[in-house]
Amino acid sequence: MTIEPEPANVQSHDDQTQVLAIVGVGLLGGSVALAAKVRGIADRVIGIGRNPDRLQAAVAAGVIDEFLTELPERDAPWTIAIIGTPVDRIAEDVRRIAAVSRPGTLITDVGSVKGSICDAVQAENLPEGVSFVGAHPLAGSERTGFEAATADLFDGKVTVVTPNPAADESANSAISSFWKHLGSRVIEMLPAEHDAALATTSHLPHVAASALAATLPEMFQQLAASGFKDTTRIAAGDPELWVAILLENAAAVSTSLDAFSQSFGKFRTAVENRDADELKKLLQVAKRNRDAL
Amino acid sequence: MTIEPEPANVQSHDDQTQVLAIVGVGLLGGSVALAAKVRGIADRVIGIGRNPDRLQAAVAAGVIDEFLTELPERDAPWTIAIIGTPVDRIAEDVRRIAAVSRPGTLITDVGSVKGSICDAVQAENLPEGVSFVGAHPLAGSERTGFEAATADLFDGKVTVVTPNPAADESANSAISSFWKHLGSRVIEMLPAEHDAALATTSHLPHVAASALAATLPEMFQQLAASGFKDTTRIAAGDPELWVAILLENAAAVSTSLDAFSQSFGKFRTAVENRDADELKKLLQVAKRNRDAL
Repeated sequence: MTIEPEPANVQSHDDQTQVLAIVGVGLLGGSVALAAKVRGIADRVIGIGRNPDRLQAAVAAGVIDEFLTELPERDAPWTIAIIGTPVDRIAEDVRRIAAVSRPGTLITDVGSVKGSICDAVQAENLPEGVSFVGAHPLAGSERTGFEAATADLFDGKVTVVTPNPAADESANSAISSFWKHLGSRVIEMLPAEHDAALATTSHLPHVAASALAATLPEMFQQLAASGFKDTTRIAAGDPELWVAILLENAAAVSTSLDAFSQSFGKFRTAVENRDADELKKLLQVAKRNRDAL
Repeated sequence: MTIEPEPANVQSHDDQTQVLAIVGVGLLGGSVALAAKVRGIADRVIGIGRNPDRLQAAVAAGVIDEFLTELPERDAPWTIAIIGTPVDRIAEDVRRIAAVSRPGTLITDVGSVKGSICDAVQAENLPEGVSFVGAHPLAGSERTGFEAATADLFDGKVTVVTPNPAADESANSAISSFWKHLGSRVIEMLPAEHDAALATTSHLPHVAASALAATLPEMFQQLAASGFKDTTRIAAGDPELWVAILLENAAAVSTSLDAFSQSFGKFRTAVENRDADELKKLLQVAKRNRDAL
């Protein structure tokens, strides 16, 4: 895991005007579009998706400049493409976009899982000169849709970039620069490292919050105060997106769920045994970890 | 469980000036003091505690008007006393305060557990004319101390009041009125009902958040984004206070921890089996419950 020191100039990658393609104009894709415009990284942002009504609305909202519902056959106009579709569709969308892109085009993504996506992309040979470098901005919300997108979503947030050994060094550094220029702090990791870490820091909390929300009987709703609400906030996330994330990273998620079960079991035993000393020790470790964030 | 419709006038309980005693001037006790002054319920607030420096600081901060570190021998000046000490000390503090109070004095508390406290108080005979009616305002924070106290902490929040069958009806209704006048919405419940509900809505989330925080290795800290932070926020609470809460309500808490383990186990099995349909169903129930709050 290395932290990149200084943002280089992503614009220098291409002397021509930067044209951005956003595949999947939702919360994250829309925020990339807005941040890239505000920060002068792109002059023109093309949204790509399936639903022309939604894409037209995103144009009307000023999130993208224009849109496509079908890909051109070749020589696409974009120089950078960001794949913002659900994690179980990203690898296929990288392949589709790469197939019509010109040499020199860079492709990145926003997926919460990296190993399965990077493996699938590397198993294909992308066209000569087209590079994919995976990324995961740790920014988001339980909200979805371009309506929730903001130009400052990535400000000060970590983006994990997983340099691609099959891509040339300039492509890897250009993608890191791109994410830095959007306002985020880039950390470079191997895809498997990312997936193990995020299984603990993101995928496990989603399951714990959901399991907690699922135990709340309706009659107790009015007694759920801010503690319950905070602890379960992320359980309001889109179930379909989360099925894809949890299953794309199932092995690492299972490991983190097991670790949590063990941790929770210690608290449970201490309560059952009315063991005040042990319970205090466990709560102190938890508080120390939380205070460190 | 009944929701009280209209606030009655708590001032009418006593024709004289209302003098409030706050035993334990922390976040909750301090907020009662501030709210009572701002809302004209008390003319004079006496803080009672062990540490004169802290109490003097609370006077300087305008949270209380004066303080005592020792109780008078008899005929105490207050007409209402609020016990804001940790839950394992509340019953004893009710007894101590009641012993020196004048007839007509009302005592209430802010404890997160009600059964053990109400049972312990009822096992003693309070002096003639002195009444205790338990309460639990569902307002708070992981922060502690009077420095975090605010006059609007209870605004629109639920306060559970547990009417005392041993107290006369006017005492029970006066305490409900008191909590309504502080800005909260009063729900009357039996102590055991309260404890079963709060085991699920408050004590379980504290354990789940703590078990989650405890599983975070230091090397992953920088990858813990807003989802992890929200889900573990309450784990920053005071370990000693929470040991007392969890153990005072140990039976109901054990039941709720078991229910959570079962719920979490279903998610875990669905991930292990890569069962997308089952996982989606579980996440949908969780989202529905969370969206209902």
